[in-house]
Amino acid sequence: MESAINVLVSQFKTYAAKDDSKNTLSKEEFQSLVTSQLPNFVKNYKTNSKWFLIRRGVSADSQNASDPATVDQLMKSLDENNDGELTFLEFWKLIGSVANQHGGFSQ
Amino acid sequence: MESAINVLVSQFKTYAAKDDSKNTLSKEEFQSLVTSQLPNFVKNYKTNSKWFLIRRGVSADSQNASDPATVDQLMKSLDENNDGELTFLEFWKLIGSVANQHGGFSQ
Repeated sequence: MESAINVLVSQFKTYAAKDDSKNTLSKEEFQSLVTSQLPNFVKNYKTNSKWFLIRRGVSADSQNASDPATVDQLMKSLDENNDGELTFLEFWKLIGSVANQHGGFSQ
Repeated sequence: MESAINVLVSQFKTYAAKDDSKNTLSKEEFQSLVTSQLPNFVKNYKTNSKWFLIRRGVSADSQNASDPATVDQLMKSLDENNDGELTFLEFWKLIGSVANQHGGFSQ
């Protein structure tokens, strides 16, 4: 498990480091990460159950990882302190919801 | 990232499946998982910074992954609905704090 956690931490750092704020994801970094690193998981959200995105106000017909509107709304729903950046823990909540739904724990 | 998430989900399921409640971790399953899967990360909590465990009322001198008292207090702090079992999302919070601290995001 530790190596898997290391992968998630290092990937977050890789995408977060693209601009000056090295420890947070801007919207562009977040979109780039979701599109390239979570293509299947976010797509599954689209087909299987939209509970995560709908609960966060993202309309059902626009939930596509590469669709800027989806990323924008998703980012706003995760960006708890509204500073336009995602901290690791804010980002971690998305991964938790993705993993929870992917693991079949939330029917 | 998706494969790393799959590892975390499948490991959770492996440990959770040892008793009848297949989708949650009992205290014994949680201890077994923490001891065997997170030995270094939880140990680092002990030496580097105890903020996570102290914030959850676990005394500084007893934070050892295999120490039942630590696991017991940690479990209580995570078990939000106090049913003696950890759901995936309750467990996910621990992993998030471990990863957050391990990634150096929380100084």
